[in-house]
Amino acid sequence: MAAPSWEDSVKSLKGVILDMCGVLYDAGEGGGTPIPGSVEAVKRLKASDLKLRFCTNETQATREKFVAKLQRMGFLISVPEVFSPSPAAVAILKERGLRPHLLVHDDVVPEFDSVEKTNPNCVVIGDAAEKFSYQNLNAAFRVLVGLEKPLLFSLGRGKYYREGDGLNLDVGVYMKALEYACDTEAEVVGKPAPTFFQKVLDDMGIPPHEALMIGDDLVNDVGGAQVCGMKGVQVRTGKYRPSDEKHPTVMADGYVNNLAEAVDTILKLRGQ
Amino acid sequence: MAAPSWEDSVKSLKGVILDMCGVLYDAGEGGGTPIPGSVEAVKRLKASDLKLRFCTNETQATREKFVAKLQRMGFLISVPEVFSPSPAAVAILKERGLRPHLLVHDDVVPEFDSVEKTNPNCVVIGDAAEKFSYQNLNAAFRVLVGLEKPLLFSLGRGKYYREGDGLNLDVGVYMKALEYACDTEAEVVGKPAPTFFQKVLDDMGIPPHEALMIGDDLVNDVGGAQVCGMKGVQVRTGKYRPSDEKHPTVMADGYVNNLAEAVDTILKLRGQ
Repeated sequence: MAAPSWEDSVKSLKGVILDMCGVLYDAGEGGGTPIPGSVEAVKRLKASDLKLRFCTNETQATREKFVAKLQRMGFLISVPEVFSPSPAAVAILKERGLRPHLLVHDDVVPEFDSVEKTNPNCVVIGDAAEKFSYQNLNAAFRVLVGLEKPLLFSLGRGKYYREGDGLNLDVGVYMKALEYACDTEAEVVGKPAPTFFQKVLDDMGIPPHEALMIGDDLVNDVGGAQVCGMKGVQVRTGKYRPSDEKHPTVMADGYVNNLAEAVDTILKLRGQ
Repeated sequence: MAAPSWEDSVKSLKGVILDMCGVLYDAGEGGGTPIPGSVEAVKRLKASDLKLRFCTNETQATREKFVAKLQRMGFLISVPEVFSPSPAAVAILKERGLRPHLLVHDDVVPEFDSVEKTNPNCVVIGDAAEKFSYQNLNAAFRVLVGLEKPLLFSLGRGKYYREGDGLNLDVGVYMKALEYACDTEAEVVGKPAPTFFQKVLDDMGIPPHEALMIGDDLVNDVGGAQVCGMKGVQVRTGKYRPSDEKHPTVMADGYVNNLAEAVDTILKLRGQ
Protein backbone atom coordinates (compact mmCIF):
# COMPACT_ATOMS: atom_id res chain seq x y z
CA MET A 1 0.00 0.00 0.00
CA ALA A 2 1.25 3.50 -0.83
CA ALA A 3 2.18 5.61 2.17
CA PRO A 4 -0.58 8.11 3.08
CA SER A 5 0.19 11.49 1.58
CA TRP A 6 0.87 13.12 4.92
CA GLU A 7 3.86 10.86 5.56
CA ASP A 8 5.44 12.03 2.28
CA SER A 9 5.27 15.62 3.50
CA VAL A 10 6.61 15.02 6.99
CA LYS A 11 10.22 15.75 6.05
CA SER A 12 9.40 19.26 4.84
CA LEU A 13 7.27 20.07 7.91
CA LYS A 14 8.14 23.17 9.95
CA GLY A 15 5.25 23.16 12.39
CA VAL A 16 2.43 21.14 13.93
CA ILE A 17 -0.92 22.38 15.20
CA LEU A 18 -2.78 20.25 17.69
CA ASP A 19 -6.43 20.27 18.49
CA MET A 20 -6.88 19.79 22.23
CA CYS A 21 -10.08 18.07 23.42
CA GLY A 22 -10.16 14.55 22.00
CA VAL A 23 -6.49 14.70 21.03
CA LEU A 24 -4.72 15.63 24.26
CA TYR A 25 -7.43 14.63 26.70
CA ASP A 26 -10.95 13.31 26.99
CA ALA A 27 -13.47 15.65 28.57
CA GLY A 28 -15.39 14.29 31.53
CA GLU A 29 -15.90 14.46 35.27
CA GLY A 30 -13.43 16.72 37.07
CA GLY A 31 -12.22 18.31 33.84
CA GLY A 32 -11.19 15.17 32.01
CA THR A 33 -8.26 12.79 31.72
CA PRO A 34 -5.22 12.74 29.41
CA ILE A 35 -5.40 10.33 26.47
CA PRO A 36 -2.69 7.70 27.06
CA GLY A 37 0.59 8.75 25.51
CA SER A 38 -0.44 12.34 24.76
CA VAL A 39 1.46 14.05 27.60
CA GLU A 40 4.66 12.33 26.45
CA ALA A 41 3.89 13.03 22.77
CA VAL A 42 3.62 16.78 23.42
CA LYS A 43 6.89 16.65 25.33
CA ARG A 44 8.62 14.93 22.39
CA LEU A 45 7.25 17.42 19.87
CA LYS A 46 8.46 20.29 22.04
CA ALA A 47 11.93 18.76 22.17
CA SER A 48 11.99 18.40 18.36
CA ASP A 49 12.86 21.02 15.75
CA LEU A 50 9.16 21.52 14.93
CA LYS A 51 7.16 24.54 15.97
CA LEU A 52 4.10 23.65 18.00
CA ARG A 53 0.83 25.45 18.59
CA PHE A 54 -2.52 24.43 20.05
CA CYS A 55 -5.78 25.36 18.43
CA THR A 56 -9.08 24.77 20.21
CA ASN A 57 -12.71 25.74 19.86
CA GLU A 58 -13.04 25.38 23.63
CA THR A 59 -15.40 28.06 24.94
CA GLN A 60 -16.37 26.66 28.32
CA ALA A 61 -13.55 28.42 30.17
CA THR A 62 -11.20 31.35 29.78
CA ARG A 63 -7.98 30.49 27.99
CA GLU A 64 -6.04 30.94 31.24
CA LYS A 65 -8.20 28.52 33.23
CA PHE A 66 -8.25 26.07 30.36
CA VAL A 67 -4.46 26.04 30.04
CA ALA A 68 -4.10 25.66 33.81
CA LYS A 69 -6.30 22.56 33.63
CA LEU A 70 -4.09 21.05 30.93
CA GLN A 71 -0.97 21.86 32.97
CA ARG A 72 -2.45 20.05 35.95
CA MET A 73 -2.90 17.01 33.69
CA GLY A 74 0.84 17.17 33.03
CA PHE A 75 0.94 18.87 29.62
CA LEU A 76 3.86 21.17 28.77
CA ILE A 77 1.77 24.05 27.52
CA SER A 78 1.52 27.82 28.02
CA VAL A 79 -1.17 30.43 27.31
CA PRO A 80 0.52 32.18 24.34
CA GLU A 81 0.74 28.87 22.46
CA VAL A 82 -3.01 28.35 22.65
CA PHE A 83 -5.46 29.83 20.14
CA SER A 84 -9.12 29.86 21.11
CA PRO A 85 -12.18 31.63 19.69
CA SER A 86 -13.07 34.05 22.49
CA PRO A 87 -10.01 36.33 22.29
CA ALA A 88 -10.40 36.31 18.49
CA ALA A 89 -14.04 37.31 18.85
CA VAL A 90 -13.18 40.11 21.27
CA ALA A 91 -10.71 41.51 18.73
CA ILE A 92 -13.35 41.45 15.97
CA LEU A 93 -16.02 43.06 18.16
CA LYS A 94 -13.71 45.91 19.15
CA GLU A 95 -12.43 46.43 15.62
CA ARG A 96 -15.96 46.75 14.27
CA GLY A 97 -17.44 48.65 17.23
CA LEU A 98 -19.95 45.91 18.00
CA ARG A 99 -21.82 45.41 21.27
CA PRO A 100 -22.69 41.75 21.76
CA HIS A 101 -25.55 40.01 23.47
CA LEU A 102 -23.71 36.98 24.87
CA LEU A 103 -25.01 33.44 24.97
CA VAL A 104 -21.88 31.72 26.24
CA HIS A 105 -20.81 29.52 29.12
CA ASP A 106 -20.67 31.39 32.46
CA ASP A 107 -16.99 30.55 32.80
CA VAL A 108 -16.07 32.27 29.53
CA VAL A 109 -17.93 35.52 30.23
CA PRO A 110 -14.82 37.13 31.80
CA GLU A 111 -13.07 36.98 28.39
CA PHE A 112 -15.61 39.59 27.24
CA ASP A 113 -15.20 41.90 30.25
CA SER A 114 -13.55 44.62 28.19
CA VAL A 115 -16.34 44.72 25.58
CA GLU A 116 -19.27 47.14 25.75
CA LYS A 117 -22.48 45.13 25.94
CA THR A 118 -25.34 47.62 26.48
CA ASN A 119 -27.89 48.07 23.69
CA PRO A 120 -26.56 45.07 21.75
CA ASN A 121 -26.23 45.13 17.98
CA CYS A 122 -25.08 41.54 17.50
CA VAL A 123 -25.18 38.15 19.21
CA VAL A 124 -22.22 35.95 20.14
CA ILE A 125 -22.84 32.29 20.93
CA GLY A 126 -20.36 29.81 22.33
CA ASP A 127 -20.60 26.32 23.73
CA ALA A 128 -23.06 27.38 26.40
CA ALA A 129 -24.09 23.78 27.19
CA GLU A 130 -26.78 23.78 29.92
CA LYS A 131 -27.25 27.52 29.36
CA PHE A 132 -28.79 26.70 25.96
CA SER A 133 -32.24 26.73 27.55
CA TYR A 134 -35.31 27.59 25.50
CA GLN A 135 -35.52 30.92 27.31
CA ASN A 136 -31.89 31.88 26.62
CA LEU A 137 -32.01 30.84 22.98
CA ASN A 138 -35.25 32.77 22.58
CA ALA A 139 -33.69 35.88 24.15
CA ALA A 140 -30.78 35.70 21.65
CA PHE A 141 -33.30 35.22 18.83
CA ARG A 142 -35.27 38.28 19.92
CA VAL A 143 -32.14 40.43 19.85
CA LEU A 144 -31.28 39.19 16.36
CA VAL A 145 -34.77 39.56 14.94
CA GLY A 146 -34.97 43.08 16.32
CA LEU A 147 -31.91 44.21 14.35
CA GLU A 148 -32.23 45.63 10.87
CA LYS A 149 -29.74 43.02 9.70
CA PRO A 150 -29.24 40.14 12.15
CA LEU A 151 -25.55 39.71 12.98
CA LEU A 152 -24.58 36.43 14.63
CA PHE A 153 -21.10 35.28 15.63
CA SER A 154 -20.59 31.64 16.48
CA LEU A 155 -17.51 30.48 18.40
CA GLY A 156 -17.05 27.39 16.27
CA ARG A 157 -19.50 25.36 14.24
CA GLY A 158 -18.93 21.91 15.76
CA LYS A 159 -21.83 19.50 15.89
CA TYR A 160 -20.98 17.55 19.02
CA TYR A 161 -18.14 16.44 21.24
CA ARG A 162 -17.55 13.44 23.43
CA GLU A 163 -17.79 13.88 27.20
CA GLY A 164 -17.56 10.90 29.50
CA ASP A 165 -19.51 8.09 27.88
CA GLY A 166 -21.71 10.12 25.55
CA LEU A 167 -21.83 12.74 22.82
CA ASN A 168 -22.90 16.28 23.68
CA LEU A 169 -24.33 18.88 21.33
CA ASP A 170 -21.90 21.65 20.44
CA VAL A 171 -22.39 25.30 19.53
CA GLY A 172 -22.78 24.68 15.78
CA VAL A 173 -26.15 23.09 16.35
CA TYR A 174 -27.46 26.24 18.02
CA MET A 175 -25.82 28.36 15.34
CA LYS A 176 -27.88 26.48 12.73
CA ALA A 177 -31.00 26.95 14.83
CA LEU A 178 -30.57 30.73 14.99
CA GLU A 179 -29.51 30.96 11.34
CA TYR A 180 -32.76 29.28 10.33
CA ALA A 181 -34.88 31.34 12.73
CA CYS A 182 -33.48 34.64 11.43
CA ASP A 183 -32.73 33.83 7.76
CA THR A 184 -29.11 34.73 8.28
CA GLU A 185 -25.68 33.16 8.10
CA ALA A 186 -23.42 33.29 11.13
CA GLU A 187 -19.84 34.48 11.03
CA VAL A 188 -17.80 31.65 12.51
CA VAL A 189 -14.93 32.62 14.82
CA GLY A 190 -12.63 29.67 15.54
CA LYS A 191 -12.08 26.51 13.53
CA PRO A 192 -12.77 25.97 10.62
CA ALA A 193 -12.64 29.70 9.74
CA PRO A 194 -9.56 30.20 7.52
CA THR A 195 -8.76 33.51 9.23
CA PHE A 196 -8.46 31.64 12.52
CA PHE A 197 -6.01 29.03 11.17
CA GLN A 198 -4.11 31.80 9.39
CA LYS A 199 -3.49 33.58 12.71
CA VAL A 200 -1.83 30.45 14.05
CA LEU A 201 0.32 30.10 10.92
CA ASP A 202 1.28 33.78 11.15
CA ASP A 203 2.30 33.28 14.76
CA MET A 204 4.54 30.35 13.76
CA GLY A 205 5.83 32.32 10.77
CA ILE A 206 5.42 29.44 8.32
CA PRO A 207 3.35 28.91 5.16
CA PRO A 208 0.45 26.43 5.26
CA HIS A 209 2.13 23.71 3.19
CA GLU A 210 4.78 23.40 5.90
CA ALA A 211 2.20 22.86 8.64
CA LEU A 212 0.25 19.80 9.78
CA MET A 213 -3.01 19.88 11.73
CA ILE A 214 -3.88 16.93 13.97
CA GLY A 215 -7.43 16.72 15.27
CA ASP A 216 -10.34 14.45 16.11
CA ASP A 217 -12.93 16.52 14.23
CA LEU A 218 -12.84 15.55 10.58
CA VAL A 219 -14.71 18.56 9.28
CA ASN A 220 -13.51 21.37 11.53
CA ASP A 221 -9.92 20.31 12.25
CA VAL A 222 -8.90 18.28 9.22
CA GLY A 223 -11.15 19.78 6.54
CA GLY A 224 -10.63 23.32 7.85
CA ALA A 225 -6.84 22.94 7.77
CA GLN A 226 -6.93 21.43 4.29
CA VAL A 227 -8.92 24.39 2.95
CA CYS A 228 -6.05 26.60 4.16
CA GLY A 229 -3.45 24.48 2.35
CA MET A 230 -2.24 22.45 5.34
CA LYS A 231 -2.20 18.69 5.65
CA GLY A 232 -4.76 17.31 8.08
CA VAL A 233 -4.56 14.07 10.03
CA GLN A 234 -7.38 12.61 12.08
CA VAL A 235 -6.79 10.73 15.33
CA ARG A 236 -9.04 7.79 16.18
CA THR A 237 -9.70 9.21 19.65
CA GLY A 238 -12.18 11.75 21.01
CA LYS A 239 -15.23 12.22 18.83
CA TYR A 240 -13.79 10.10 15.99
CA ARG A 241 -16.30 7.70 14.52
CA PRO A 242 -15.48 4.95 11.96
CA SER A 243 -17.95 6.52 9.51
CA ASP A 244 -15.60 9.57 9.34
CA GLU A 245 -13.32 7.50 7.11
CA LYS A 246 -16.02 7.38 4.42
CA HIS A 247 -17.19 10.99 4.75
CA PRO A 248 -18.81 12.31 1.55
CA THR A 249 -16.78 15.52 1.27
CA VAL A 250 -13.75 15.49 3.60
CA MET A 251 -10.90 12.99 3.37
CA ALA A 252 -8.07 13.21 5.88
CA ASP A 253 -4.49 13.06 4.60
CA GLY A 254 -3.97 10.30 7.12
CA TYR A 255 -5.41 8.48 10.12
CA VAL A 256 -3.57 7.51 13.28
CA ASN A 257 -4.83 5.66 16.32
CA ASN A 258 -3.84 8.48 18.63
CA LEU A 259 -1.51 11.44 19.04
CA ALA A 260 1.34 9.26 20.34
CA GLU A 261 1.27 7.25 17.11
CA ALA A 262 1.25 10.42 15.00
CA VAL A 263 4.26 11.86 16.84
CA ASP A 264 6.11 8.53 16.66
CA THR A 265 5.60 8.44 12.89
CA ILE A 266 6.59 12.09 12.41
CA LEU A 267 9.75 11.90 14.48
CA LYS A 268 10.80 8.55 13.02
CA LEU A 269 10.42 9.83 9.45
CA ARG A 270 12.47 12.87 10.39
CA GLY A 271 15.15 10.67 11.96
CA GLN A 272 14.62 12.06 15.46
CA MET B 1 -54.42 48.60 -9.73
CA ALA B 2 -55.47 45.14 -10.94
CA ALA B 3 -57.40 43.08 -8.40
CA PRO B 4 -55.14 40.56 -6.62
CA SER B 5 -55.39 37.16 -8.24
CA TRP B 6 -57.16 35.56 -5.32
CA GLU B 7 -60.19 37.83 -5.77
CA ASP B 8 -60.56 36.60 -9.36
CA SER B 9 -60.82 33.05 -8.12
CA VAL B 10 -63.30 33.67 -5.31
CA LYS B 11 -66.36 32.91 -7.42
CA SER B 12 -65.19 29.40 -8.23
CA LEU B 13 -64.23 28.62 -4.61
CA LYS B 14 -65.76 25.58 -2.93
CA GLY B 15 -63.85 25.62 0.33
CA VAL B 16 -61.73 27.66 2.71
CA ILE B 17 -58.99 26.43 5.06
CA LEU B 18 -58.10 28.62 8.00
CA ASP B 19 -54.92 28.62 9.99
CA MET B 20 -55.76 29.14 13.66
CA CYS B 21 -53.16 30.89 15.85
CA GLY B 22 -52.58 34.39 14.49
CA VAL B 23 -55.72 34.23 12.33
CA LEU B 24 -58.48 33.33 14.78
CA TYR B 25 -56.75 34.36 17.99
CA ASP B 26 -53.53 35.69 19.44
CA ALA B 27 -51.69 33.37 21.81
CA GLY B 28 -50.89 34.77 25.23
CA GLU B 29 -51.66 34.65 28.92
CA GLY B 30 -54.59 32.41 29.82
CA GLY B 31 -54.66 30.78 26.38
CA GLY B 32 -55.00 33.91 24.27
CA THR B 33 -57.66 36.27 22.96
CA PRO B 34 -59.73 36.27 19.76
CA ILE B 35 -58.58 38.64 17.03
CA PRO B 36 -61.32 41.29 16.63
CA GLY B 37 -63.89 40.21 14.05
CA SER B 38 -62.67 36.62 13.77
CA VAL B 39 -65.42 34.94 15.81
CA GLU B 40 -68.04 36.63 13.62
CA ALA B 41 -66.07 35.89 10.44
CA VAL B 42 -66.04 32.14 11.18
CA LYS B 43 -69.77 32.29 11.87
CA ARG B 44 -70.38 33.97 8.50
CA LEU B 45 -68.24 31.43 6.61
CA LYS B 46 -70.15 28.59 8.28
CA ALA B 47 -73.44 30.12 7.19
CA SER B 48 -72.21 30.43 3.59
CA ASP B 49 -72.16 27.77 0.88
CA LEU B 50 -68.40 27.26 1.35
CA LYS B 51 -66.88 24.27 3.07
CA LEU B 52 -64.68 25.19 6.01
CA ARG B 53 -61.80 23.41 7.70
CA PHE B 54 -59.15 24.45 10.20
CA CYS B 55 -55.53 23.52 9.79
CA THR B 56 -53.02 24.15 12.56
CA ASN B 57 -49.50 23.17 13.49
CA GLU B 58 -50.46 23.57 17.14
CA THR B 59 -48.67 20.94 19.20
CA GLN B 60 -48.90 22.37 22.69
CA ALA B 61 -52.19 20.64 23.51
CA THR B 62 -54.29 17.69 22.39
CA ARG B 63 -56.70 18.52 19.59
CA GLU B 64 -59.63 18.11 22.00
CA LYS B 65 -58.26 20.57 24.57
CA PHE B 66 -57.23 22.99 21.86
CA VAL B 67 -60.70 23.00 20.27
CA ALA B 68 -62.32 23.40 23.70
CA LYS B 69 -60.19 26.53 24.23
CA LEU B 70 -61.35 27.99 20.93
CA GLN B 71 -64.97 27.19 21.78
CA ARG B 72 -64.58 29.05 25.07
CA MET B 73 -63.39 32.07 23.07
CA GLY B 74 -66.69 31.88 21.17
CA PHE B 75 -65.62 30.14 17.95
CA LEU B 76 -68.08 27.82 16.19
CA ILE B 77 -65.71 24.92 15.76
CA SER B 78 -65.64 21.16 16.35
CA VAL B 79 -62.88 18.56 16.63
CA PRO B 80 -63.45 16.76 13.29
CA GLU B 81 -63.03 20.06 11.41
CA VAL B 82 -59.55 20.59 12.85
CA PHE B 83 -56.41 19.07 11.32
CA SER B 84 -53.29 19.06 13.50
CA PRO B 85 -49.93 17.27 13.22
CA SER B 86 -50.04 14.89 16.20
CA PRO B 87 -52.87 12.61 15.00
CA ALA B 88 -51.22 12.58 11.56
CA ALA B 89 -47.90 11.59 13.15
CA VAL B 90 -49.53 8.82 15.18
CA ALA B 91 -51.01 7.39 11.98
CA ILE B 92 -47.60 7.40 10.27
CA LEU B 93 -45.83 5.82 13.25
CA LYS B 94 -48.35 2.97 13.45
CA GLU B 95 -48.36 2.40 9.70
CA ARG B 96 -44.57 2.08 9.65
CA GLY B 97 -44.21 0.22 12.95
CA LEU B 98 -42.07 2.99 14.48
CA ARG B 99 -41.41 3.53 18.19
CA PRO B 100 -40.75 7.22 18.88
CA HIS B 101 -38.64 8.99 21.44
CA LEU B 102 -40.85 12.02 22.09
CA LEU B 103 -39.64 15.58 22.56
CA VAL B 104 -43.00 17.31 22.68
CA HIS B 105 -44.98 19.54 25.01
CA ASP B 106 -46.24 17.72 28.11
CA ASP B 107 -49.82 18.56 27.19
CA VAL B 108 -49.60 16.79 23.81
CA VAL B 109 -48.07 13.57 25.15
CA PRO B 110 -51.53 11.95 25.60
CA GLU B 111 -52.04 12.06 21.80
CA PHE B 112 -49.27 9.44 21.62
CA ASP B 113 -50.68 7.16 24.36
CA SER B 114 -51.53 4.40 21.90
CA VAL B 115 -48.04 4.28 20.39
CA GLU B 116 -45.34 1.86 21.57
CA LYS B 117 -42.37 3.87 22.82
CA THR B 118 -39.86 1.41 24.31
CA ASN B 119 -36.53 0.91 22.55
CA PRO B 120 -37.13 3.90 20.24
CA ASN B 121 -36.15 3.78 16.57
CA CYS B 122 -37.07 7.36 15.67
CA VAL B 123 -37.54 10.79 17.27
CA VAL B 124 -40.64 12.99 17.12
CA ILE B 125 -40.31 16.66 18.02
CA GLY B 126 -43.13 19.16 18.45
CA ASP B 127 -43.37 22.67 19.80
CA ALA B 128 -41.95 21.65 23.17
CA ALA B 129 -41.22 25.26 24.21
CA GLU B 130 -39.60 25.30 27.69
CA LYS B 131 -38.99 21.57 27.36
CA PHE B 132 -36.40 22.34 24.68
CA SER B 133 -33.68 22.33 27.32
CA TYR B 134 -30.09 21.44 26.47
CA GLN B 135 -30.52 18.15 28.27
CA ASN B 136 -33.70 17.16 26.43
CA LEU B 137 -32.36 18.15 23.02
CA ASN B 138 -29.18 16.21 23.75
CA ALA B 139 -31.20 13.14 24.75
CA ALA B 140 -33.07 13.28 21.43
CA PHE B 141 -29.76 13.72 19.61
CA ARG B 142 -28.27 10.68 21.34
CA VAL B 143 -31.21 8.52 20.25
CA LEU B 144 -30.83 9.71 16.66
CA VAL B 145 -27.07 9.34 16.50
CA GLY B 146 -27.36 5.83 17.93
CA LEU B 147 -29.58 4.67 15.06
CA GLU B 148 -28.11 3.20 11.92
CA LYS B 149 -30.04 5.78 9.95
CA PRO B 150 -31.34 8.71 12.04
CA LEU B 151 -35.10 9.14 11.54
CA LEU B 152 -36.55 12.44 12.74
CA PHE B 153 -40.17 13.59 12.48
CA SER B 154 -40.94 17.26 13.06
CA LEU B 155 -44.48 18.41 13.82
CA GLY B 156 -44.21 21.48 11.60
CA ARG B 157 -41.20 23.48 10.49
CA GLY B 158 -42.24 26.97 11.67
CA LYS B 159 -39.52 29.36 12.75
CA TYR B 160 -41.38 31.36 15.39
CA TYR B 161 -44.80 32.49 16.50
CA ARG B 162 -46.10 35.52 18.31
CA GLU B 163 -47.15 35.14 21.94
CA GLY B 164 -48.11 38.15 24.00
CA ASP B 165 -45.72 40.94 23.09
CA GLY B 166 -42.87 38.87 21.68
CA LEU B 167 -41.85 36.24 19.18
CA ASN B 168 -41.13 32.72 20.39
CA LEU B 169 -39.00 30.08 18.69
CA ASP B 170 -41.00 27.31 17.08
CA VAL B 171 -40.25 23.64 16.44
CA GLY B 172 -38.61 24.20 13.04
CA VAL B 173 -35.61 25.81 14.68
CA TYR B 174 -34.95 22.69 16.75
CA MET B 175 -35.60 20.53 13.71
CA LYS B 176 -32.78 22.36 11.91
CA ALA B 177 -30.54 21.94 14.95
CA LEU B 178 -31.02 18.15 15.01
CA GLU B 179 -30.79 17.88 11.22
CA TYR B 180 -27.39 19.54 11.34
CA ALA B 181 -26.21 17.53 14.34
CA CYS B 182 -27.09 14.21 12.69
CA ASP B 183 -26.56 14.94 8.97
CA THR B 184 -30.16 14.07 8.25
CA GLU B 185 -33.32 15.63 6.91
CA ALA B 186 -36.47 15.52 9.00
CA GLU B 187 -39.82 14.33 7.72
CA VAL B 188 -42.23 17.18 8.38
CA VAL B 189 -45.70 16.23 9.59
CA GLY B 190 -48.11 19.18 9.45
CA LYS B 191 -47.94 22.31 7.33
CA PRO B 192 -46.30 22.82 4.82
CA ALA B 193 -46.14 19.08 4.00
CA PRO B 194 -48.28 18.54 0.87
CA THR B 195 -49.62 15.24 2.26
CA PHE B 196 -51.02 17.16 5.23
CA PHE B 197 -52.84 19.74 3.09
CA GLN B 198 -54.05 16.95 0.81
CA LYS B 199 -55.77 15.21 3.73
CA VAL B 200 -57.77 18.38 4.39
CA LEU B 201 -58.73 18.67 0.71
CA ASP B 202 -59.72 14.99 0.65
CA ASP B 203 -61.90 15.54 3.71
CA MET B 204 -63.66 18.46 1.95
CA GLY B 205 -63.85 16.43 -1.26
CA ILE B 206 -62.65 19.28 -3.47
CA PRO B 207 -59.63 19.78 -5.75
CA PRO B 208 -56.91 22.26 -4.70
CA HIS B 209 -57.80 24.94 -7.24
CA GLU B 210 -61.22 25.30 -5.61
CA ALA B 211 -59.71 25.87 -2.15
CA LEU B 212 -58.26 28.94 -0.47
CA MET B 213 -55.85 28.89 2.48
CA ILE B 214 -55.78 31.88 4.83
CA GLY B 215 -52.87 32.12 7.27
CA ASP B 216 -50.43 34.41 9.01
CA ASP B 217 -47.35 32.32 8.14
CA LEU B 218 -46.19 33.25 4.65
CA VAL B 219 -44.00 30.20 4.10
CA ASN B 220 -45.89 27.43 5.86
CA ASP B 221 -49.51 28.48 5.31
CA VAL B 222 -49.44 30.49 2.09
CA GLY B 223 -46.43 28.95 0.36
CA GLY B 224 -47.35 25.43 1.46
CA ALA B 225 -50.90 25.79 0.10
CA GLN B 226 -49.64 27.27 -3.17
CA VAL B 227 -47.32 24.29 -3.71
CA CYS B 228 -50.43 22.09 -3.53
CA GLY B 229 -52.26 24.19 -6.13
CA MET B 230 -54.40 26.26 -3.77
CA LYS B 231 -54.55 30.00 -3.53
CA GLY B 232 -52.97 31.43 -0.40
CA VAL B 233 -53.81 34.71 1.32
CA GLN B 234 -51.84 36.20 4.20
CA VAL B 235 -53.49 38.12 7.04
CA ARG B 236 -51.65 41.07 8.54
CA THR B 237 -52.21 39.69 12.05
CA GLY B 238 -50.33 37.18 14.21
CA LYS B 239 -46.74 36.69 13.18
CA TYR B 240 -47.13 38.77 10.00
CA ARG B 241 -44.25 41.17 9.45
CA PRO B 242 -44.16 43.87 6.72
CA SER B 243 -41.01 42.27 5.28
CA ASP B 244 -43.16 39.22 4.35
CA GLU B 245 -44.56 41.26 1.45
CA LYS B 246 -41.11 41.35 -0.15
CA HIS B 247 -40.13 37.75 0.59
CA PRO B 248 -37.52 36.38 -1.85
CA THR B 249 -39.34 33.15 -2.75
CA VAL B 250 -42.98 33.21 -1.59
CA MET B 251 -45.59 35.70 -2.81
CA ALA B 252 -49.08 35.51 -1.40
CA ASP B 253 -52.01 35.63 -3.82
CA GLY B 254 -53.36 38.43 -1.67
CA TYR B 255 -53.02 40.31 1.62
CA VAL B 256 -55.82 41.30 3.96
CA ASN B 257 -55.65 43.20 7.21
CA ASN B 258 -57.38 40.39 9.09
CA LEU B 259 -59.72 37.44 8.73
CA ALA B 260 -62.83 39.64 8.97
CA GLU B 261 -61.68 41.59 5.92
CA ALA B 262 -60.94 38.39 3.99
CA VAL B 263 -64.39 36.98 4.71
CA ASP B 264 -66.07 40.30 3.87
CA THR B 265 -64.32 40.33 0.50
CA ILE B 266 -65.09 36.68 -0.24
CA LEU B 267 -68.77 36.88 0.63
CA LYS B 268 -69.26 40.21 -1.16
CA LEU B 269 -67.67 38.89 -4.37
CA ARG B 270 -69.93 35.85 -4.14
CA GLY B 271 -72.99 38.06 -3.61
CA GLN B 272 -73.67 36.72 -0.12
